[in-house]
This record gives sequence, structure tokens and C-alpha cells, in this order.
Amino acid sequence: MDAIDHVVMNAHLHYLGMAARVIEPVMKLAVLTCMDARIDAAALLGLRPGDAHVIRNAGGRASGDALRSLAISQAILGTREVMVLHHTDCALGRFTESDLAERITAATGHPFAEELGCFTDPIDAVLEDVDRLRGYTGLVHRDKVRGFMYDLAANALREVLERKSAC
Amino acid sequence: MDAIDHVVMNAHLHYLGMAARVIEPVMKLAVLTCMDARIDAAALLGLRPGDAHVIRNAGGRASGDALRSLAISQAILGTREVMVLHHTDCALGRFTESDLAERITAATGHPFAEELGCFTDPIDAVLEDVDRLRGYTGLVHRDKVRGFMYDLAANALREVLERKSAC
Repeated sequence: MDAIDHVVMNAHLHYLGMAARVIEPVMKLAVLTCMDARIDAAALLGLRPGDAHVIRNAGGRASGDALRSLAISQAILGTREVMVLHHTDCALGRFTESDLAERITAATGHPFAEELGCFTDPIDAVLEDVDRLRGYTGLVHRDKVRGFMYDLAANALREVLERKSAC
Repeated sequence: MDAIDHVVMNAHLHYLGMAARVIEPVMKLAVLTCMDARIDAAALLGLRPGDAHVIRNAGGRASGDALRSLAISQAILGTREVMVLHHTDCALGRFTESDLAERITAATGHPFAEELGCFTDPIDAVLEDVDRLRGYTGLVHRDKVRGFMYDLAANALREVLERKSAC
């Protein structure tokens, strides 16, 4: 059985009972985090269905696509806070942009030269993304953008408050 | 495998603080879905921590950023299947691009003219994203890209198989 068939079966078994739930996130919160399989944002942050938008990409980076999603989240759906949540042992911190592009090129057999969001210092990456969001004029609310680092090994979440390499 | 072995395995995989959990998704699956607060991808699909990459943006669209994330997911982290999972009552299906951009402009007080991924037919949007992924040379595996529509009100998930307006 393919993985997709497996999760479709799970979906049939899952009961959410939520026809009346509204589209606007109850907590007025948007979370930007990594696609990493080890992160279950809802379980980790105690989010119930309906509580918060969750935007995820490789690295949890403040990409153009993430900015667009957050613009909609705030202007149309009423969220006011943004939580940027990166984590330890992220694949994007293991490679340089050119290394990663070369590996994708080798694996696919097609030239790959797109921007990938790699970083060398994980704390700097969080701060960079927080700064980018705070400076993005597509957001209605930029005063409550905060950055966090989730330590997978320690299962500990901590806020990233200032620009210094401490990870 | 006995049922007890199965649940013991589940318990090992579930523990969030497990340092030894591997970075490569166990199910070799990546899910592309919407940021919508009413979707808890892990709960809906029965994903345990470590099972699958989850990429989310406004609409669950196959944006450039989603493609980049999936390229990394497959070439570096070994996933092989992509599940595109859209849902009913999506905000991006309620507005035209220009309406949405105008609303963001009005809410922020800054001109907004970025592409937002709006659609008129939700089934077409799923098929468009599936097609885009199947044609993307940055993916190693394009034979198991499948599209789904999640009906929030009915709590029903169904596969989108062919190009016709049926939603």
C-alpha cells in the first residue's frame, strides 16, 4: 500500500466534528515553521483545529510565499501575531546553497539553480526571518512577530531574543 | 507483527523528545496543504512525528517555494510521494486576485501587488497543482503525485482524479 493510501485510510477514520468552526483562526495566530517530519506543530504547541494558521516550508523561512500567506492571514482572516519556529538539526543548516543545488541536480538529472534558504547559523536564520517579517509592508500587524528555536533532542522550545550566535 | 509490537513501535515513534529519531520521513511522504487553521494534517492523516514532511501555504498551492521545499524533500531526505491536499471553503476561492490585493492594500495602507494564488474552481486548482508538480524537473519522483479535496463540513477526503468541475 502506498503511503498516500495509508493516510487516506487514516483520514476516513478521523473524526473532527467541525462543520460550525469558523475560518478565522480563534487565537489570531499564524505559525511559520519547517516542513520537518519531526515537528507536529499542533501537538507541540497545543493547537486545536481552528486555533491558528500554520505555514510550513523547508527551514520555516520567511520566503516570498510565506509572506504572501501571512499577508492574507492578517488582512483577510484577522490574525495578529506571527510565531517563527525553527528547529535544531535542520537540513538547511547542513549544506551550502551550492552544495544543496548540486545534490538536487545530481539526484534529478536536471540543472537546479533556485534559491533554497540555506543558513550557517540557525539563530541568525531565525532573527533574519523575524526581521524580514517586521519589515514587510504586506502585514497589518508587525509588532508581535517573535522567533523561536525548538531543540528536538531536548524537546525544549526557547525564544530567540537577540542577535548573537548562541546555538 | 503482533498488535502489541505495533503499538510499542508507535510509542517509540510518538515520543517528541526522542533524539534518535531520524531526519528522513519514515513514510517517504510529503504533504502539501493549506495553512487553514481547521486543518490539523497530522491528526487528519494519522501522521506520527517523523512520518512525513508537511508543507503549508495559503491554499496549499504548488508555489515556487513549495516546489523548492519538495525538491529538498525528495533529493536530500528521501521522500517519494507527494500528496496535494486542498479543502472546501478556502479563502483563496472567495476572492479574485485583484480583490484580495485591494483588501490587503486597504488593510495595510501599503500598495500590494503580489501573486496570491486565488482560484475560481477548487477542483481545477488541485489538478493545476498536481500537474505543476508532475512537470517540475526539480523532483526526483513524479509518478506518485496525487491530489485530494478535503470537505471540512462533511469531514470527508476524496481523491481528485480527472479534470472536470465537480465541486
